[in-house]
Amino acid sequence: MNNERHILSAFDRDLETVQALVVKMGGMVESAIHDAAIALETRDGELADDIRRRDKAIDALEHQINEEAARLIALRAPRATDLRMVLSVIKISHILERVGDYAKNIAKRSNVLADMPAIDGAGMALRRMSATVEAMMKDALDSYIQRDAALAADVRKRDLEVDQMYNALFREFLTHMMEDPRNITACMHLHFIAKNIERMGDHATGIAEQVIYLATGELPEDPRPKGESVPRMEGA
Amino acid sequence: MNNERHILSAFDRDLETVQALVVKMGGMVESAIHDAAIALETRDGELADDIRRRDKAIDALEHQINEEAARLIALRAPRATDLRMVLSVIKISHILERVGDYAKNIAKRSNVLADMPAIDGAGMALRRMSATVEAMMKDALDSYIQRDAALAADVRKRDLEVDQMYNALFREFLTHMMEDPRNITACMHLHFIAKNIERMGDHATGIAEQVIYLATGELPEDPRPKGESVPRMEGA
Repeated sequence: MNNERHILSAFDRDLETVQALVVKMGGMVESAIHDAAIALETRDGELADDIRRRDKAIDALEHQINEEAARLIALRAPRATDLRMVLSVIKISHILERVGDYAKNIAKRSNVLADMPAIDGAGMALRRMSATVEAMMKDALDSYIQRDAALAADVRKRDLEVDQMYNALFREFLTHMMEDPRNITACMHLHFIAKNIERMGDHATGIAEQVIYLATGELPEDPRPKGESVPRMEGA
Repeated sequence: MNNERHILSAFDRDLETVQALVVKMGGMVESAIHDAAIALETRDGELADDIRRRDKAIDALEHQINEEAARLIALRAPRATDLRMVLSVIKISHILERVGDYAKNIAKRSNVLADMPAIDGAGMALRRMSATVEAMMKDALDSYIQRDAALAADVRKRDLEVDQMYNALFREFLTHMMEDPRNITACMHLHFIAKNIERMGDHATGIAEQVIYLATGELPEDPRPKGESVPRMEGA
């Protein structure tokens, strides 16, 4: 009996250690989302370069989390819910790595955009969209730490708002491009950034769905609430 | 001794079962890549709808693979290389699910594009790019089944070709948009499709990197050979 209790608490301690790494990684990714939007809006090339450097540390952390999780499984042989929790660590760190990549891509593009004509209001609109996604990501991670399925369900719902922001921006960029062909290249890049932010929202939703799975044992059955993902807009 | 041998072979049998599901999933994803390019080029709305339906089966298969892998870990408590192999099953099926999503997105967009003016040669160029990625995906999965690190390294190298195809298309679409604003909306969608195919190539590379990790115990150290991921092109 005593022995079993000892084994259980050793597993819990190890799980906490690896989850702390996930939380750390989450913090780094939240900062990357935040700073990428700032770098884009203020055309701050140094900040953009810094985000690209920091992405290497995010990638390294994912690798470390994978190794630690594998070690935990090998050492403690967890089952059922415990095992599910360790596997979710691997999934969530992979999602965070993808989001970090998107932030890095935005930083790269903001360097390219710095040499192009500015598009009125685009930087601010993208920062607003990015702030929404950053808050979703924060709440998705909080819901994970607290195993809060209600908060996770709320994150899923908010993705609809991000999809609507993306669709509105898509139309705005089209208008800019049709009005003046000199805007075309910049708008192509801005459109990509909008799409990257929209994808980050999808990934925050992916984390929320993992939390719901952990809390309830089932993935949400209803299709994720979603705005039209391919805006239907005719050519001028 | 006899007992240990029994345990080993039970693990191997279980691993083969779950790997067979990954192979099946890989076949479905290869078909989806193939058909998405055909649906786009021939403006075949029924085929596009079919791809969207089939994506549900791909998603369900990922879920099943996850459950089987978790069951395998819980039941057989694999360690070291064995554990790494089971975890790679989870990773690879997740990558395949992402690629299936990209194929579905292409199918969605090809429905939207069917109502727009055609862009000369775009369908054929995208199908060529898609065929390259489909072959990479096939070889990545073959390298996985055969634990063939040399074939996996070859897949990684070929991603450079896909990046170059993408960059050439990016420039072509820009030219079409600048020549005639009526092409803008169609080119925005086509550009997205090109980017989705380029991302599929990245994912095939991701599978190849898992294979190299399985075969050598280390992720490839050298940065992945890569064309410029954000084309630097000035506005007209």
